Amino acid sequence: MITGKTINEMKIGDAVEFTKTITEADIYMFAGITGDVNPAHLNEAYAKKTPFKKRIAHGMLTAGYISAILGNQLPGPGTIYLGQELKFLAPVFIGDTVTVRVEVAELMPEKNRVRLKTTCTNQDGKLVLTGEALVMAPKQPVNVVTPMKVAGNYEASLPAQREVGAQS
Amino acid sequence: MITGKTINEMKIGDAVEFTKTITEADIYMFAGITGDVNPAHLNEAYAKKTPFKKRIAHGMLTAGYISAILGNQLPGPGTIYLGQELKFLAPVFIGDTVTVRVEVAELMPEKNRVRLKTTCTNQDGKLVLTGEALVMAPKQPVNVVTPMKVAGNYEASLPAQREVGAQS
Repeated sequence: MITGKTINEMKIGDAVEFTKTITEADIYMFAGITGDVNPAHLNEAYAKKTPFKKRIAHGMLTAGYISAILGNQLPGPGTIYLGQELKFLAPVFIGDTVTVRVEVAELMPEKNRVRLKTTCTNQDGKLVLTGEALVMAPKQPVNVVTPMKVAGNYEASLPAQREVGAQS
Repeated sequence: MITGKTINEMKIGDAVEFTKTITEADIYMFAGITGDVNPAHLNEAYAKKTPFKKRIAHGMLTAGYISAILGNQLPGPGTIYLGQELKFLAPVFIGDTVTVRVEVAELMPEKNRVRLKTTCTNQDGKLVLTGEALVMAPKQPVNVVTPMKVAGNYEASLPAQREVGAQS
């Protein structure tokens, strides 16, 4: 089960991390669904001649992992994503293991808005992406049974998602 | 062939648009590759009870179309994506047809940086996403033969990508 948190259930400094190894398949599917076929992502012969020397992941693919934490955990279900600032600081290569961290930076209860610091680092601890998210938290706690546990583990006994809370 | 433009080949107001219908498959693949399994995207029974009444696309999926224009056309190959600001203004539903527009807003030749206004509208002309991108343009024109023409049409006679220009 994943639970959406109201603004009253969060405090500044609360943080969630999620780690994922970027595969070639991720990049090719991202290229397919977005249409971003820039050769820096898809053409190894071309990429060898670039400053990065090999294919790199789309920056927006890495940014998608921020969305995963916001949507799954902090605040989680019931969240409305209002905005995101992104700075792409370093390339992410096929096989890199990226840890995204989302941390509550500011609570604005009068408008039910939360600002969160969002960073992604690679397996060497190098910052590859930084920025911040602005979201509206669920007004009431939202509990959702999901086939996928946090960080992608499957809950085989729970094949269907089911809402047991409320969203307003 | 797609061509990357140097900063000298762009002027303020230059714009490129790309239109795509969002499918259920796009959303499910995006959920799979990012791990964002928020039920607002994947659970129709849950979504019916939300303010949006049905499943919505991930905001970061729509944002990926901005990356497609930057990477394919404006500036195109050789571009280095430095940053992006995003404001998610309205939901995008399965079957919606989104037009993303990227327009040159500021040229900073001393640093070889370009700021671009980025907007996404749906089939009713409603703004669903706005923001701006910051990129480094290729220092020299980059020509790349690609299997995919702009906007996703296949160039069947050119199965392999091939660099014929240079990137520095």
